[in-house]
Amino acid sequence: MQAVIWKRPCVLALRSCGPFAACGGSGSFSFRNGGRAPQRTFTLRVINSTGSGAVVARPSSARKSKRSEGVDGKLAALRQLFHKPGLQMDAYIIPSQDPHQSEFIAECFMRRAFISGFTGSAGTAVVTKDKASLWTDGRYFLQAENQLGPDWMLMRAGTPGVPTISEWLTDVLSPGSKVGIDPFLFSSDAAEELKHTLSTKDHKLIYVYDGNLVDEIWKEDRPKPPTAPVRVHDIKYAGLDVSSKISSLRQNLVEAGATSIVISMLDEIAWLLNLRGNDVAHSPVAYAYLIVEIDSTTLFIDPLKITPEVTVHLKNSNVTVKPYESLLLEVERLANCGAKLWLDTSCTNVAIIDAFHSACNKYFENLPKRSKQKGIKERKKLLDAKSIDSEMEGPLAIHKASPVAIAKAIKNGAELDGMRQAHLRDAAALADFWAWLETKVGQDKMTLTEVEVADKLLEFRSKQAGFLDTSFDTISGSGANGAIIHYRAEPDTCDIVDDKKLYLLDSGGQYVDGTTDVTRTVHLGEPSSREKECFTRVLQGHIALDQAIFPENTPGFVLDVLARSSLWKIGLDYRHGTGHGVGASLNVHEGPQGISYRYENMTGLQGGMIVSNEPGYYEDRSFGIRIENLVIVRDVETPNRFGGNSYLGFEKLTFVPIQSKLLDLSLMSPAEIEWLNNYHSEVWEKVSPLVQGDVHEWLWKNTRPVPVHSTA
Amino acid sequence: MQAVIWKRPCVLALRSCGPFAACGGSGSFSFRNGGRAPQRTFTLRVINSTGSGAVVARPSSARKSKRSEGVDGKLAALRQLFHKPGLQMDAYIIPSQDPHQSEFIAECFMRRAFISGFTGSAGTAVVTKDKASLWTDGRYFLQAENQLGPDWMLMRAGTPGVPTISEWLTDVLSPGSKVGIDPFLFSSDAAEELKHTLSTKDHKLIYVYDGNLVDEIWKEDRPKPPTAPVRVHDIKYAGLDVSSKISSLRQNLVEAGATSIVISMLDEIAWLLNLRGNDVAHSPVAYAYLIVEIDSTTLFIDPLKITPEVTVHLKNSNVTVKPYESLLLEVERLANCGAKLWLDTSCTNVAIIDAFHSACNKYFENLPKRSKQKGIKERKKLLDAKSIDSEMEGPLAIHKASPVAIAKAIKNGAELDGMRQAHLRDAAALADFWAWLETKVGQDKMTLTEVEVADKLLEFRSKQAGFLDTSFDTISGSGANGAIIHYRAEPDTCDIVDDKKLYLLDSGGQYVDGTTDVTRTVHLGEPSSREKECFTRVLQGHIALDQAIFPENTPGFVLDVLARSSLWKIGLDYRHGTGHGVGASLNVHEGPQGISYRYENMTGLQGGMIVSNEPGYYEDRSFGIRIENLVIVRDVETPNRFGGNSYLGFEKLTFVPIQSKLLDLSLMSPAEIEWLNNYHSEVWEKVSPLVQGDVHEWLWKNTRPVPVHSTA
Repeated sequence: MQAVIWKRPCVLALRSCGPFAACGGSGSFSFRNGGRAPQRTFTLRVINSTGSGAVVARPSSARKSKRSEGVDGKLAALRQLFHKPGLQMDAYIIPSQDPHQSEFIAECFMRRAFISGFTGSAGTAVVTKDKASLWTDGRYFLQAENQLGPDWMLMRAGTPGVPTISEWLTDVLSPGSKVGIDPFLFSSDAAEELKHTLSTKDHKLIYVYDGNLVDEIWKEDRPKPPTAPVRVHDIKYAGLDVSSKISSLRQNLVEAGATSIVISMLDEIAWLLNLRGNDVAHSPVAYAYLIVEIDSTTLFIDPLKITPEVTVHLKNSNVTVKPYESLLLEVERLANCGAKLWLDTSCTNVAIIDAFHSACNKYFENLPKRSKQKGIKERKKLLDAKSIDSEMEGPLAIHKASPVAIAKAIKNGAELDGMRQAHLRDAAALADFWAWLETKVGQDKMTLTEVEVADKLLEFRSKQAGFLDTSFDTISGSGANGAIIHYRAEPDTCDIVDDKKLYLLDSGGQYVDGTTDVTRTVHLGEPSSREKECFTRVLQGHIALDQAIFPENTPGFVLDVLARSSLWKIGLDYRHGTGHGVGASLNVHEGPQGISYRYENMTGLQGGMIVSNEPGYYEDRSFGIRIENLVIVRDVETPNRFGGNSYLGFEKLTFVPIQSKLLDLSLMSPAEIEWLNNYHSEVWEKVSPLVQGDVHEWLWKNTRPVPVHSTA
Repeated sequence: MQAVIWKRPCVLALRSCGPFAACGGSGSFSFRNGGRAPQRTFTLRVINSTGSGAVVARPSSARKSKRSEGVDGKLAALRQLFHKPGLQMDAYIIPSQDPHQSEFIAECFMRRAFISGFTGSAGTAVVTKDKASLWTDGRYFLQAENQLGPDWMLMRAGTPGVPTISEWLTDVLSPGSKVGIDPFLFSSDAAEELKHTLSTKDHKLIYVYDGNLVDEIWKEDRPKPPTAPVRVHDIKYAGLDVSSKISSLRQNLVEAGATSIVISMLDEIAWLLNLRGNDVAHSPVAYAYLIVEIDSTTLFIDPLKITPEVTVHLKNSNVTVKPYESLLLEVERLANCGAKLWLDTSCTNVAIIDAFHSACNKYFENLPKRSKQKGIKERKKLLDAKSIDSEMEGPLAIHKASPVAIAKAIKNGAELDGMRQAHLRDAAALADFWAWLETKVGQDKMTLTEVEVADKLLEFRSKQAGFLDTSFDTISGSGANGAIIHYRAEPDTCDIVDDKKLYLLDSGGQYVDGTTDVTRTVHLGEPSSREKECFTRVLQGHIALDQAIFPENTPGFVLDVLARSSLWKIGLDYRHGTGHGVGASLNVHEGPQGISYRYENMTGLQGGMIVSNEPGYYEDRSFGIRIENLVIVRDVETPNRFGGNSYLGFEKLTFVPIQSKLLDLSLMSPAEIEWLNNYHSEVWEKVSPLVQGDVHEWLWKNTRPVPVHSTA
């Protein structure tokens, strides 16, 4: 891979954050504030991770370096910009983010990769006048070693002795230094946290508004911002028209005492407006902002993306279009009009938040003195009040989690039905695929690479009606590669899929009516007893979670232990969450709900939510196991309703056989075997009408009941 | 009960917080700050509970009132004290606390009961110039209605429309009023929270140092503070001598940069000094404070309690004795000497915290100017620093959770062995008891009351070697009374125990070597299928938790779902926690660990901790079920140790048969039946050598294996 010219592998590799995300939020993926969509908060996690004060990092000279030419030039050019008129900076931080805290980002935002050469999905570059360091986590140490030039220092985050970014800055900068960031790339919460940490060391965080400094070096080589056309998401899949959704949102505004809201998350905009975009791989979203006021809705987007069909659709929904770049002006206008503006500081970039706050301050400064004091006093009162009086004088920022996240997470009937239909076609494609793979590897003894196998899967999926894209980069991991949770097979370096090793396949599709995400682990030869024991225990966890019945609004983390306890019994575990939310024909990863050992996300599970159920077990340098279904959270009829509660359970969306060969039936209870047999009978019933010939036969064989052993 | 003169029932009823506490921390019982001993934080919970702003409460005229004479006089006398020179108060809050945030308190501290007439264990009285209100929770509505005089308003906390204390105060007081409290009865955290809430409404919280106002009315009728002699807790049960414990504590001080600590929790003092007291029922503690400095240890206690044996013991451990009342002077002395004083604000009363802070301020005010500024700057620096430099000039308050709580919670070998031994003798007493009860009720068809049955149990326990006291008031609940979680049978009003209803018995003993707490539910006739289904599901939860294996340091709340999920499957639940810590020959209720649906307690479970396992189910006006064992958290040998973790499980301490008659075996898995049979075989093996004759036969019958059914 390293021999290829820079641009292509960068694009490919950066997208590899997908697979990682698909396995439930391990590593750098986390929900912030317990109630927002998934965000890549890795940057700040690094900044805040505890570490010893001493700066210990392996010098880059000790690392392999295959392509150092030109890197120095970039660093030198960047450092020259530190002295631009009015700047006088001592350091500049380059994160992996786009301005919307997206999980997948467009090429034009891959600035950290451009400046450092390191193309992994998670990492933060920090450049001072004489040093350049890159922080990344254990998943990327090897890749970063290979990609970073000799002037870069690799900071292995989480390794003992490795400083955090702020510790390092404190060590290398003289007191009172200025650290610059692009305010569009940091959420307000993240910037505030960073500012606070730096201030304890007398450093200053400064927002560089006048263009991103990396872009000034990148120049014309920088990919253009995407302009792919937006399409209308059919009402038969969306279920609810735009006016109804906007109307509910306005109800939220009124209840909170707000008069307007800025929506910054791309999937929230796509969902609210029943639009789908094509600006980034895997996520059917378009770069845009949205402002909803009590009596108007404005979409800030490149007009090139708006087709005539979309123009009509937006007009029918009373949505005005303005250029993407005019958002800040509009935010300032809102302040001048005395708007009570709802802003979600966990996902809205600090440039927007700051623009509003500055405009508010100007508003109050320009008031005549008496009225000014009244205004300030009113504002102070408001901060203490439980509800906000929208008649109050002057503008106000209301910092609250966006109400769209939860509205989007609770799917309506049409969305659920679309998800069900998409999953059946996806299951048919997977039956085609597994039947093909078993024949090729098992009978024909063909040699296939991990990449070839993944490509073939895409071929099968592409044949299904309504297929658009994979929902993330397929994880096709044979043997030891299966133990690398974020593994991405590359043509030149990947392993073969054969009948000697376990094979883990985590993949998903974007369809017009739904989004899928499924993981199966199989052995095409004879599994070892160790592999069988581990697989059986992972399945037991999957079954225990699938069968859970629980009071409405139980936070997902309460259920996490159910998926782990069978592994814990023999001292095993896995280092990722158990379940993440999934969009309906939208992002494969969405919040605010989740099922994880991270206990801070208090979002209660509610009927209509979709989550993944994906326990796993990974034996380093040996094999990986994961069994993943998507499920709908839904009401369950219980004979009692203690405390007047509804009780919830899960309805399965995924119908793909689980390989019985990998089971140690002696470990399983009769109830667990019954679960498996019922599941397979359902798979047969639902998927067999969709497949033919050999695949039909394969499906029949792979959904036969296993015997319930007698337990003495 | 209401016909009896006031004093006796007050004492009895106030002690009834014991049973409640024994079932795992529901209702008013909670761990604060996730890491401290159990405290009765009800007062603050009420203050902070959300409620509508409107003051709606049933006037006391609408309530039964049997003994109003004299109450008015008390209120009038109290109100007169509002105008004492220098006071000028508008309201006075009288909580249920003693100065140590104890769960069980001495009679002399039962001020809220004295002033209001309401003798329940949880409740707060608030008296203004023209109103008097009492807040209590649902457990006590009926009792409070009966006991409060006509001048009192009952505030049914948690009921819609009932204001919190601060909401009510805001409503009835004019702005800028003064609300007084006795600073010895509020923890510093509680007082700060109250002060903050009141200040948002422009009211002032004032600390009335000059004696408790209720005491001034109570006068010579007020019971004298207890003076029961303290005894030495034998080293063979304590396992560790005082010098070693103090030395570890000093290590904690050094690591935190502290030079001294005030210990205020009575069980922490008893544990540290290997002393046991007799000042309150059920808890073998004595009223005292302890200050540990780097080179000295001072016990503040009434010298009357110190026997010659204890004098020698303390001298050998280099512990100096000073009068209980001299604590504040000593705290001020520490400030004057520049001590870095460790104070746990969650359990130390605000009188102590304030005394130190005031003395610190005086210290810095009295410094020469230059040195003063340096001192203040140093102090500011310290607040940001990770470690504290004990060489820094001047005194400093270090607010941290007491390190004694966790040291006490992790039992040493001798403590664990004492607990095991005490539990075996307790199990023998319970075998005696259950055999007796079955004979009397089942065969002889005798009519026994709940109180008579509890008394008989005490008789059996008293015969066991080393028995000292019950560890809380026995909950002896027949039929519908079993559904009242805090039920306390009273001779005049209690039900009978017969062969028609379920019977729930939650009880425990204090022994020289250990503390027990066990609940069993039985039916002495023919249980209904409903009762059997519920009992079986409670047992399934108990078994699932008992069998859990989990990584070290897993917070207890993670395991809580295991005890509930069998009930959730049919839409049932219980409104209390699943497990609480238990002291070794100390308080039946201790922290910091717990197993609860309250997710804020992040204390990780560690080997050597003791917790209860007590799921339940309560059907209002019908029956209650609870099955409680105590267990030791201990290392488990697992074939793997993922992530280098130790894995933990539970060792049972309680060996009392579980009534098989109440099981619906068709609901149970073979593994669950195996657990039951193994448990009973262990009960037989351990307890049969300790019982004779009929009891031996009863034990034999009640520990026979049940058949493992065949699951089709």
